[in-house]
Amino acid sequence: MRTIDWVDDAIEIIDQTALPDRTTVLRLSTVETVVDAIRSLAVRGAPALGVAGALGVALAARLHHDEPQRLADAVERLRTARPTAVNLARGVDRAAARLAESPSAVLAEAVALRDEEEAASVAMARLGADLLGQLCPPRCRLLTHCNTGALATVTGGTALGVVVELHRRGGLESVIASETRPLLQGARLTAWELDRAGVDFRVAVDGAGPFLMARGRVDAVVVGADRICANGDTINKIGTYAHALGARRAGLPFVVVAPESTVDPATATGAQVEIEDRGSAEVVSFAAARTTPAGAGAVNPAFDVTPADLVTAVVTDRRVIRLDRGEQI
Amino acid sequence: MRTIDWVDDAIEIIDQTALPDRTTVLRLSTVETVVDAIRSLAVRGAPALGVAGALGVALAARLHHDEPQRLADAVERLRTARPTAVNLARGVDRAAARLAESPSAVLAEAVALRDEEEAASVAMARLGADLLGQLCPPRCRLLTHCNTGALATVTGGTALGVVVELHRRGGLESVIASETRPLLQGARLTAWELDRAGVDFRVAVDGAGPFLMARGRVDAVVVGADRICANGDTINKIGTYAHALGARRAGLPFVVVAPESTVDPATATGAQVEIEDRGSAEVVSFAAARTTPAGAGAVNPAFDVTPADLVTAVVTDRRVIRLDRGEQI
Repeated sequence: MRTIDWVDDAIEIIDQTALPDRTTVLRLSTVETVVDAIRSLAVRGAPALGVAGALGVALAARLHHDEPQRLADAVERLRTARPTAVNLARGVDRAAARLAESPSAVLAEAVALRDEEEAASVAMARLGADLLGQLCPPRCRLLTHCNTGALATVTGGTALGVVVELHRRGGLESVIASETRPLLQGARLTAWELDRAGVDFRVAVDGAGPFLMARGRVDAVVVGADRICANGDTINKIGTYAHALGARRAGLPFVVVAPESTVDPATATGAQVEIEDRGSAEVVSFAAARTTPAGAGAVNPAFDVTPADLVTAVVTDRRVIRLDRGEQI
Repeated sequence: MRTIDWVDDAIEIIDQTALPDRTTVLRLSTVETVVDAIRSLAVRGAPALGVAGALGVALAARLHHDEPQRLADAVERLRTARPTAVNLARGVDRAAARLAESPSAVLAEAVALRDEEEAASVAMARLGADLLGQLCPPRCRLLTHCNTGALATVTGGTALGVVVELHRRGGLESVIASETRPLLQGARLTAWELDRAGVDFRVAVDGAGPFLMARGRVDAVVVGADRICANGDTINKIGTYAHALGARRAGLPFVVVAPESTVDPATATGAQVEIEDRGSAEVVSFAAARTTPAGAGAVNPAFDVTPADLVTAVVTDRRVIRLDRGEQI
């Protein structure tokens, strides 16, 4: 089952805000519903966002092909629905490059991107499992952060695709899924995917990662990325950088897995990347739980920057870049 | 208002599990209710736990003074209600040392500890504010973790007492309160205390600390401790170590504030300290929120160890120990 797909002239996604309680398919048949789904994280994960952007342009082309201004506005709204993951803007641009041809040419491009992301997941899983098999034989105890499985891509996954492939090969001992506040993508989505894959796992609060590494409970850290800069600085979900610091102090490998579509040679370093602040509400009111006093605000950066010198290796669908050995993006 | 006190032959505490929604005073008139209050974190914070232990022994002495075995059992249950903070066992032992005299002698000892912890808060606030005034003049932007205010002591506080004193002196710009999963002592309790003190603050998820430091949003980190080992290794709420790693990488001071009653020369290093694992429920089910799939487990260490080399200074009620300058505990 694909996380996102084109079905009968509309986009269908698994609503990730409803998991793990309910597996709900949302049918998106207007550009505004696509933009809302991206902003609310009903669809999320860098590769899935790229496909959402491209399919969104295909939908816009079909609906508004005889209204050039409206079409241009729709493309821009899709492109800027979220700022940090490079894949969204890239997916939009790639599909939009064929707007001059025909709506069906745009759709063909978007579907090609979908298929490429699926193939990339397979390739990353193989290369990443090969690498982890070398880094922590014979069976790894891994820590991962956020969700990087099939839900973050189309099928398969990035870092979690590697984890599941390692499990298939018999090279996985266990996984710690960092819960990933504020939206709990780890506790909700990664736990759900690991459970279905039959992997032995436990959830941990984000702040426990470095300590669990220091106490010898983890052999390697494997995460995804929203953008990988030319120098290897890695933008990923908030909390990733703290795990990287913990891995370095404990002498553990820290491996980033992302498709080539997430590598961004046009951005020199992480300092140049706009980090989305998603506002107070996600942090200070958490469902019905008692949390902060009324009126308290939050600072809520959605991503952080892991400096390249803390990254052991970047695994893409085409290559393994050993940053720890001086190899370059 | 004291967080914990002896009132009309029983112990009264502010129920910290009900804050910030309700300010409820719990009256504890049996040893079992005291043990339950400690285990459930209705009373928490290393200095407050010491007073709770001592007053618990005073209560036991009054109730069971003619039942030696029952009294001894009660003392042991109090002593081991939680394993990590040194203050609890110390408070129990100090009060229990006078059991051979009379119930009122035991109570006098417990009340003396209460008064000493109050005086220690005043002294720490002064010394700590002096130090931070030197480390980040003229106005500090601080990050703190967990709750170390009046709620964690009797009145005043440890790290948060320093923060409030610095605010009184005009030396505080703003505070980031790290929410402190799983029980949100930062988002619930520290936010509540900072709000009442009129401090400009924002809450952040725990994983954001190191990134906010890297981006220049913080001038210094100030935290409390549950135990400070002979070599300076500091045991504190889970997530502290990650902030210490972030501070080191960003070149920021990392200051630990705790009374002398938390310094434990009998424990050589953090490796020897038993770290309480509080089980899965606190992590995987969070109030009514959708969280993890049914049956998923968690690893839930309640504390971590910050190695001494990451600590700039320890501030107690009697001294400032500059670990960064080679001074010894």
